[in-house]
Amino acid sequence: MKNKVLRIGALYDFYGALLTDKQQKCIEFRYLNDLSLSEIADEFKVSRQAIYDILRRSEQILTEYEEKLGLVERYRLDQKQIRTVVNILSELAADNQQKLPRINEAFNLLMAVLK
Amino acid sequence: MKNKVLRIGALYDFYGALLTDKQQKCIEFRYLNDLSLSEIADEFKVSRQAIYDILRRSEQILTEYEEKLGLVERYRLDQKQIRTVVNILSELAADNQQKLPRINEAFNLLMAVLK
Repeated sequence: MKNKVLRIGALYDFYGALLTDKQQKCIEFRYLNDLSLSEIADEFKVSRQAIYDILRRSEQILTEYEEKLGLVERYRLDQKQIRTVVNILSELAADNQQKLPRINEAFNLLMAVLK
Repeated sequence: MKNKVLRIGALYDFYGALLTDKQQKCIEFRYLNDLSLSEIADEFKVSRQAIYDILRRSEQILTEYEEKLGLVERYRLDQKQIRTVVNILSELAADNQQKLPRINEAFNLLMAVLK
């Protein structure tokens, strides 16, 4: 379940705005607020099955966008590279007191890119 | 026109896969291969006006995706930050011969992220 939360969270972060308001709300209740299907059903005054269907459909839409565009995967690869650079900067910082302010500046810029 | 080419090129790079095959071909002929509307019309054996309409519609679709998702803009801001870090790394490289291989490694990783 934890992996699914992360996966849907990443997809939703990129493509969520392409879902309807109701689909967005369901995904947020389920994956950001960790509500159960029954709790979300109560919220919308519909059946648990209806929420299950909305969630399944929403997840399918998000997955299809990623299959077409691959932007989450592209982003992930970039983040992996940047993380390595952050490690190198830490190493340089330990060795280079004189340049520390500049190295920290670089470090902070990259940390802002690493979301 | 040059700005438009860059703008549509970036949008197409991110969202192009959401267009139909014909829309994609038109965008590529116009903005990647720099063909005129008449030349594209000849290619598809349709009127110049038909190509004009397809292009206008495709550009509108790409623009709407960006309005909703903002992924090109988000990417651009990240790239701007990373470019600054690349400059700092160049500066560190000039000052730090001993660590040069590691700095170059960081530099190359970032250059791969800067597309």
